[in-house]
Amino acid sequence: MKDGVEEFLREDVPADWRDVSSAVVEGVDAEATVFTRDEGVVAGVEEACAVFSHLGAEPNPRVEDGEGVEASDVIMEPSGDGVALLRGERLALNLLGSMSGIATATRECVERVERTGADTTVAATRKTTPGYREFEKRAVSLGGGDPHRYDLTEAVMLKENHIALVGLEEAFRRAENRASFTTKIEVEAEDLRTAERAAELGADIVLLDNMTPEEVAEAVESLDGAGITAEASGGITSENVAEYARAGADVVSMGSLVHSSDWLDLSMRVE
Amino acid sequence: MKDGVEEFLREDVPADWRDVSSAVVEGVDAEATVFTRDEGVVAGVEEACAVFSHLGAEPNPRVEDGEGVEASDVIMEPSGDGVALLRGERLALNLLGSMSGIATATRECVERVERTGADTTVAATRKTTPGYREFEKRAVSLGGGDPHRYDLTEAVMLKENHIALVGLEEAFRRAENRASFTTKIEVEAEDLRTAERAAELGADIVLLDNMTPEEVAEAVESLDGAGITAEASGGITSENVAEYARAGADVVSMGSLVHSSDWLDLSMRVE
Amino acid sequence: MKDGVEEFLREDVPADWRDVSSAVVEGVDAEATVFTRDEGVVAGVEEACAVFSHLGAEPNPRVEDGEGVEASDVIMEPSGDGVALLRGERLALNLLGSMSGIATATRECVERVERTGADTTVAATRKTTPGYREFEKRAVSLGGGDPHRYDLTEAVMLKENHIALVGLEEAFRRAENRASFTTKIEVEAEDLRTAERAAELGADIVLLDNMTPEEVAEAVESLDGAGITAEASGGITSENVAEYARAGADVVSMGSLVHSSDWLDLSMRVE
Amino acid sequence: MKDGVEEFLREDVPADWRDVSSAVVEGVDAEATVFTRDEGVVAGVEEACAVFSHLGAEPNPRVEDGEGVEASDVIMEPSGDGVALLRGERLALNLLGSMSGIATATRECVERVERTGADTTVAATRKTTPGYREFEKRAVSLGGGDPHRYDLTEAVMLKENHIALVGLEEAFRRAENRASFTTKIEVEAEDLRTAERAAELGADIVLLDNMTPEEVAEAVESLDGAGITAEASGGITSENVAEYARAGADVVSMGSLVHSSDWLDLSMRVE
Amino acid sequence: MKDGVEEFLREDVPADWRDVSSAVVEGVDAEATVFTRDEGVVAGVEEACAVFSHLGAEPNPRVEDGEGVEASDVIMEPSGDGVALLRGERLALNLLGSMSGIATATRECVERVERTGADTTVAATRKTTPGYREFEKRAVSLGGGDPHRYDLTEAVMLKENHIALVGLEEAFRRAENRASFTTKIEVEAEDLRTAERAAELGADIVLLDNMTPEEVAEAVESLDGAGITAEASGGITSENVAEYARAGADVVSMGSLVHSSDWLDLSMRVE
Amino acid sequence: MKDGVEEFLREDVPADWRDVSSAVVEGVDAEATVFTRDEGVVAGVEEACAVFSHLGAEPNPRVEDGEGVEASDVIMEPSGDGVALLRGERLALNLLGSMSGIATATRECVERVERTGADTTVAATRKTTPGYREFEKRAVSLGGGDPHRYDLTEAVMLKENHIALVGLEEAFRRAENRASFTTKIEVEAEDLRTAERAAELGADIVLLDNMTPEEVAEAVESLDGAGITAEASGGITSENVAEYARAGADVVSMGSLVHSSDWLDLSMRVE
Repeated sequence: MKDGVEEFLREDVPADWRDVSSAVVEGVDAEATVFTRDEGVVAGVEEACAVFSHLGAEPNPRVEDGEGVEASDVIMEPSGDGVALLRGERLALNLLGSMSGIATATRECVERVERTGADTTVAATRKTTPGYREFEKRAVSLGGGDPHRYDLTEAVMLKENHIALVGLEEAFRRAENRASFTTKIEVEAEDLRTAERAAELGADIVLLDNMTPEEVAEAVESLDGAGITAEASGGITSENVAEYARAGADVVSMGSLVHSSDWLDLSMRVE
Repeated sequence: MKDGVEEFLREDVPADWRDVSSAVVEGVDAEATVFTRDEGVVAGVEEACAVFSHLGAEPNPRVEDGEGVEASDVIMEPSGDGVALLRGERLALNLLGSMSGIATATRECVERVERTGADTTVAATRKTTPGYREFEKRAVSLGGGDPHRYDLTEAVMLKENHIALVGLEEAFRRAENRASFTTKIEVEAEDLRTAERAAELGADIVLLDNMTPEEVAEAVESLDGAGITAEASGGITSENVAEYARAGADVVSMGSLVHSSDWLDLSMRVE
Repeated sequence: MKDGVEEFLREDVPADWRDVSSAVVEGVDAEATVFTRDEGVVAGVEEACAVFSHLGAEPNPRVEDGEGVEASDVIMEPSGDGVALLRGERLALNLLGSMSGIATATRECVERVERTGADTTVAATRKTTPGYREFEKRAVSLGGGDPHRYDLTEAVMLKENHIALVGLEEAFRRAENRASFTTKIEVEAEDLRTAERAAELGADIVLLDNMTPEEVAEAVESLDGAGITAEASGGITSENVAEYARAGADVVSMGSLVHSSDWLDLSMRVE
Repeated sequence: MKDGVEEFLREDVPADWRDVSSAVVEGVDAEATVFTRDEGVVAGVEEACAVFSHLGAEPNPRVEDGEGVEASDVIMEPSGDGVALLRGERLALNLLGSMSGIATATRECVERVERTGADTTVAATRKTTPGYREFEKRAVSLGGGDPHRYDLTEAVMLKENHIALVGLEEAFRRAENRASFTTKIEVEAEDLRTAERAAELGADIVLLDNMTPEEVAEAVESLDGAGITAEASGGITSENVAEYARAGADVVSMGSLVHSSDWLDLSMRVE
Repeated sequence: MKDGVEEFLREDVPADWRDVSSAVVEGVDAEATVFTRDEGVVAGVEEACAVFSHLGAEPNPRVEDGEGVEASDVIMEPSGDGVALLRGERLALNLLGSMSGIATATRECVERVERTGADTTVAATRKTTPGYREFEKRAVSLGGGDPHRYDLTEAVMLKENHIALVGLEEAFRRAENRASFTTKIEVEAEDLRTAERAAELGADIVLLDNMTPEEVAEAVESLDGAGITAEASGGITSENVAEYARAGADVVSMGSLVHSSDWLDLSMRVE
Repeated sequence: MKDGVEEFLREDVPADWRDVSSAVVEGVDAEATVFTRDEGVVAGVEEACAVFSHLGAEPNPRVEDGEGVEASDVIMEPSGDGVALLRGERLALNLLGSMSGIATATRECVERVERTGADTTVAATRKTTPGYREFEKRAVSLGGGDPHRYDLTEAVMLKENHIALVGLEEAFRRAENRASFTTKIEVEAEDLRTAERAAELGADIVLLDNMTPEEVAEAVESLDGAGITAEASGGITSENVAEYARAGADVVSMGSLVHSSDWLDLSMRVE
């Protein structure tokens, strides 16, 4: 994480001595308060602390990653040379704002699922901001979700496009042949028949794509006893996630957790 | 840009030969269609092309960055080895989806401003996703907006926190002293009096922060003739951007262009 | 792979113009023959080709990765400027020699297993040369083996040391809690009882560590029907791998494939 | 060295928070013992210490690089958070195992040479594992050997292939012309005549390639008084190294020190 | 700055353990004195301190960056292990020598300008040593000069070549269109007429190129009141800089500050 | 070299699309002429070509590295899109100007030595611009000089400071012990006695430091027949280099070749 944070700092401050704005407060000891205007789940505290530490300030976190906060709660109170505080402010807020937004959206979906009594996992997807996936997946995790595959080398996923090109049987055979025994194989199914065929072939997971809750329920029932994990995906939002949970999906995966969540509204004030 | 794209690919595919999913379609020549389900302004075409080119496929773009599209329009038709197409799919869509979302949101605000007849510039801020700023700023630009400062070394901006620590006069004096003559100096003002004082000190730009359109109008009038650029910021959204334009702001800057825009909904299908 | 090869070249040639040895043959067009003095399975051809291509020579491979060769067979016949050939020679041979050695050792074990008629997978481990794992795992793969986990983020493996610190039940509970549903969980067992307990807890794979073939056979029988993969490891060499296969292990994993295989003896001659 | 070690850690742990296996022992303070099952010469202690230090644990080395050890001797006793110990375990053992194997093989050859009473240097070659040369050469050094040329920019070496392309005289003339006066020039000779010619031309070192001990003895005698260093290479192993030493070679260089040495068998146990 | 210094160290010491020269003083505690044989303005102290700190020695600076020194003044007295001192010596002296040379040359010009009573800024240009600009610009700054544009993304500069290709009006129109409102636009003028036209178009700065002091005076007078900054450049040296200041230029920019300044003559002695 | 050039380009153009100045000539095909206003020896042509090629333009070199030029001679005529030409201009000129300056200064010294009839080598030192040594040493080479040690890992050099700390005998003993047999050992001597002692110990090279030509002559005579290379250094300039050559030094090394040479005055003009 530290590596990433240093690189992000270089994005905002390619060369310290050329940051004239922050330099005007050189030599002034200061204390700052980072607070939220929204309620939600905080994520990015560890990263924001790394920003201030890297710049030589004391981060002083007041909440932990994954904790819930109310509007106007204090997240951290970094103190140190004014330059360090004002130079790190924007990046710290960008990390906290974006990651907390994702954690908050995830928690909301997780709670909606929990209220149904279902044991359904809420998961992210690979629809993430290029270069920032590590942080977005961690935010999902802090919100109580499952990060899902981190990249193309984790688990095997045979999607509609793979099947269109070589057929399900051939695709599965090749995947089984090349994948390590330590790796699960998942098959995307757009209809019940494909889902059943995937289970017969020995898939570990079937992704029920773009199905209604009713179709998912039917598929889950039909696959029952096959020892296969049923994941529903496609068009699932906080609005309808509970219905998919009730339909019996083991997992619901939602790109919207990352790409449609709003940032938490945070500010920093110095004294 | 190419550098960035290669790094993003490594995020999704740390090692080609370990991407078993894509490998199942090895040796199959294919053509793909990348299309949109939403209308909007396309951005990221150049980047998506770089993804497919880097992987050895023909990108075949069908629209240009900055162009408007309707739902179901085709963005590009990459062709080549199946592995290249399916390996690059997710990253290409992530780039196109996120950047087009920003360009679309920007264009909407630009058009709302244009309809007022005002000559107001719509600008982004430094509230961007860590590591992805280059791409988000470019998307704002493609949507017709102004990217604003790229990082802390561009232009000098004295904000509320700087002023709180050393006072406006001292902050300005130090900034003028250290900044190159090639650089503009901007001062954030939370009230009319600070704005006027900034103009007297010789600021190039004044940022009217968190003011109502009425307060902005008053400030603009008061600063008229001082040769200073008036930028309004804070709480400006597509809903109220027109009012700020009518209030006479030279520039309105909006963090929401980047952090609250929805991705364009895009897919890729192979044959 | 290309990235790695460029970095390796910089290790041997930190700066082209300072390589005086190769420079003495500047301007001389040459053809070279890379041949083997040993029989075995070739690996590293793709990498060796990348070396010569990067230096501007034609690689001209004559066998494919994974192919068997006899003593004095020609592997490739690179041609081009003498500088390119002699500058790339050592790295190309180091890649081919080390990777082919691993592929050859792997193939030998795979064939010994095949002769038993068992359907046992021969796998590598994480005992690899620091910085060179990618290449060593690929060589195992080309020899017909399973690369096993690439790094600590792939699959979860609870080993003796984890169990010693927090106990099997607690370790498994935590692992299940944090791991994505896309990931398998493996438990290392030094005795039958632990193996059975792992199966009950829901482990996907059990690693039977440092057991005799007889103990492995007993464990396999006892686990039969539990849907768990049985991997034997510890002290398995080409000498006794067949016995472990006959004992019914689904997988045998062997560090020796990488760290104890001899390089294939290869040379390059120019004309 | 620290740079290399960090990069190696990233190979085994691309992202800390995704290492679920180690995370199960979070918060447990632990002490570990790294011990050897083989006797030999230890190398890689400094590197293994860097691994644990980097992860925040106390390395506590118990022997020094280059020291001899007996079976079951303790190498180090790292202590700290369980996560740090188990996360660093594999890399630390891989460094110690591979480097100690090389140091042990080197020491054995050095001792065989010493027993002959000859003042012959045992040296490595450029036959090393790509990306790991720095560490392998250092291990040779710790075993009492000479690392030889680190890369193509150190010393000039005119080998059979250079001579085949432009002739010895021309190759030597060009080398002398381009090489700095601070650099030695070495010529590979496959027969006595070439060796003598190299000495006449002013070579600093002659490499007697693939000669029998008798041929080496003859060459050494013939070159006596020419102030040239005689290096024997090609097919020299621990079995016959003493004969080459007795033949009067100033240096014997052996690729096998690196590519054919067995790893020392080491383990780590936590309490 | 620290990043740069580490990279520079790797240039001089690619691998610590291969630096045999410094290793001969291992284990000897030593104190060193870095002193100057020339008078001038010191720059590079912070960088030289970073070199010794990075190597584990105490830097002990005795003067500050930007301070004036007399011949034989002591700059710093680093102490620590002999290896650290002798390994860092050359790089520390190279940084101090080159940067102090630039700072000294800058100060001389600044003082010549000050003696005229003019309020003219002395500035550098982009004529800098590739890879070392950051350090050269900082040295100019420490000498009292203005660093000018750091790179092509700072401010817009339309030079003779741009104008030759598309004409001044078109070039200016395009620049205004694409540049952020936070950025100044500068136009290079080889004659009075172009300078006046640039002012009319709204340029922030006009660069009066290769003009005599008389021509500059004429241009300054003609532009008076247009609110445009007048920068003189081309052929300005310490000899004639005072004349350009007297001519009324707001800025004089001089490539010679960087590319023609002599290094300060510095040495290090250990005891 | 290409690696270095790309990094240098990023220094001047951190992001292509943010280079508004060059963008104003987008789409205009152009031809440029790079010419010199000074006579001298050209170096950096290969590097300048790499700059333009990297940007997609045709470099079209008209002279070769190491060739002599007269004032107003054309060095290269790059052609292509206006953006590529104007974006690469500054870096290409910086490379050519600085490297040609060094090559020219070196050639002058080489010629002065040649006119004495002596067979003395003119060499550089490690007094180079941090980060740019590769290019400066190559320029010395192109001017006919010897680059000398590239870094601390090449050859061993025992200087006054090493000797002050551990004594000459001990320093030499340790150096011999640790250095590879492929490496030369050089000793710096400030008086005749040290030079003679170094020869007795078996040094390959003695550096006669800060001696007058007469002292050098005396030392050379005294060392005659010892088979040691005599290098004179310290205060040698183009003014007195001939005297040192006449004194019989095998090598004269001069820091001034790099740090005191003036850039060649070059320009680029487009049509």
